[in-house]
Amino acid sequence: MASGELQFIQQLRNRAGRPKGAVRLGIGDDCAVLRPPSGHDVLVTTDFSLEGRHFRRDWHPAASAGHRCLARGLSDLAAMGAQPMAAFLSLALPTGFTRRAANRTWLDGFLGGLLHLAKQTKTPLAGGDTSTAPGDAILADIVLLGSVPEGTELRRSKARPGDGLYVTGHLGGASAELAALAKSPRSLRKASPADDHPHLYPQPQLRVGQRLRSLASAAIDISDGLSTDLTHLCEESRVGAIVEADSLPLHQLLTNKKDALQHALHGGEDYQLLFTASATSKVPRSIGGIPITHIGQIVRGKDITLRSNGKTERLEPAGWEHSL
Amino acid sequence: MASGELQFIQQLRNRAGRPKGAVRLGIGDDCAVLRPPSGHDVLVTTDFSLEGRHFRRDWHPAASAGHRCLARGLSDLAAMGAQPMAAFLSLALPTGFTRRAANRTWLDGFLGGLLHLAKQTKTPLAGGDTSTAPGDAILADIVLLGSVPEGTELRRSKARPGDGLYVTGHLGGASAELAALAKSPRSLRKASPADDHPHLYPQPQLRVGQRLRSLASAAIDISDGLSTDLTHLCEESRVGAIVEADSLPLHQLLTNKKDALQHALHGGEDYQLLFTASATSKVPRSIGGIPITHIGQIVRGKDITLRSNGKTERLEPAGWEHSL
Repeated sequence: MASGELQFIQQLRNRAGRPKGAVRLGIGDDCAVLRPPSGHDVLVTTDFSLEGRHFRRDWHPAASAGHRCLARGLSDLAAMGAQPMAAFLSLALPTGFTRRAANRTWLDGFLGGLLHLAKQTKTPLAGGDTSTAPGDAILADIVLLGSVPEGTELRRSKARPGDGLYVTGHLGGASAELAALAKSPRSLRKASPADDHPHLYPQPQLRVGQRLRSLASAAIDISDGLSTDLTHLCEESRVGAIVEADSLPLHQLLTNKKDALQHALHGGEDYQLLFTASATSKVPRSIGGIPITHIGQIVRGKDITLRSNGKTERLEPAGWEHSL
Repeated sequence: MASGELQFIQQLRNRAGRPKGAVRLGIGDDCAVLRPPSGHDVLVTTDFSLEGRHFRRDWHPAASAGHRCLARGLSDLAAMGAQPMAAFLSLALPTGFTRRAANRTWLDGFLGGLLHLAKQTKTPLAGGDTSTAPGDAILADIVLLGSVPEGTELRRSKARPGDGLYVTGHLGGASAELAALAKSPRSLRKASPADDHPHLYPQPQLRVGQRLRSLASAAIDISDGLSTDLTHLCEESRVGAIVEADSLPLHQLLTNKKDALQHALHGGEDYQLLFTASATSKVPRSIGGIPITHIGQIVRGKDITLRSNGKTERLEPAGWEHSL
């Protein structure tokens, strides 16, 4: 790994490989050039991954930081039912960062983690930007482009009273694993992306999202926590919701019953999909091996209610929000 | 200007206005949705604007920092002949930044400068991301999407021996104005974007770029400096070049003859276009009021030579490169 910007870009270019799929021209010109499938709309999302905010070098294995950086954007594409076309990585490193061998190893691992998930999801890395960072923190911003047949994207705003409320996979695992990581970072140093590590290696639900285009009325990904993301969906759709606490599919990492509901309701970064479907829509119990769970329903008004053992309480958004 | 992330996003959404042009769905969902003009390819570029690296709050008026942030990306679109479709802004602010009134004023000015240029160039702000920054510096990353009729983009790699070498506008003004700014930041506090301020308010050459699609063989924008960007173009095209020093269109800010050539050759951020055209191409002396100047030609080999008063010397890339 070299120390000059141009050498670094050349290495990225080599690792990213030749343009493929929708990418006609990748890294190395003023812009990348993409040709979306004919009759498709283009979807775009951008997500920061900032050291100290979204990852910590003393907690996250380098490959996990890279994986999570890309997974955040892929999950946004999944939530709207899109197929990935290309990723763009803006990366700023502290001055002189690559002079230290340990830093070069970290960077190599970060890119390895990112490119491994990119390959799995057929998402070519087609460009980005590099810079020195103004402080000691590594700064990344990932951009994802995807496509859907014209006008078929899933939106947050299309839920209707009477629709059922569903989630994919299991909830709360990411925040439980994060708590374990904070307690003992070394214990997860050797975690493999092939195993179920909901915080370190979340799996964006791209296939489920694409299938949901013909099943769901509205969708959002659970990045900030179920309570907060359900609030977003309800606000955009101008509806309320009832969530059945006992129906929530708890992740197996949630062994402490007392905390389990808090993790499942408010723990962020599960990167599962929360969606609604009309009562007449035949929602299967699983899609491509991913369980689908009915957790409540959409109602008139704007209240979001949690029902548990016959009792109801208001469900306030208590997930993640930056304090600017 | 509010202090919570969600309130800030809501304000951005209000200021960005309703979706228009190619934008079918803007800020407020997991992704934005764009419909490129039929039969067009999509161009993508991303550029950091990091405080302390790309701008300084004690040097740059807030509106200039916002203008420059967007201009960097627009200039990349211009270099490939594209028409803008949409911009995406990722913005990270230090923790608690918006609690201070002076910071809210700065942020307002930054967005004002960015959105003013966005309006002028018909580039709707369609999304992005917000976060707290890990340090004291403001961190921005701008993403631009544009379009060209399929397969017509200008590339760096298509210059051929015998082609003429041209630039738009004038050179060296941006680095001369930056030097003046460093000397006396207050003197430029009231600079207006309507006047010629090549560093504070560079004008991306979008119209010229679009016209060049039918005139030029290759193009690049001059962001890192003529010597460095010409080197990029020659490397990608596997050619050499001869530059006539006496032909360089010096910016009127270059009053000191001794420094003028250095600014014009190596000063970055002019955001003019450097392009090549075959000998049979009829390149006009101006396009839309922007002067076009013949400054040399493309030759076989890989040497880049500067010719002045009959003497020749090797022109080394001495423009901007980050030290990672």
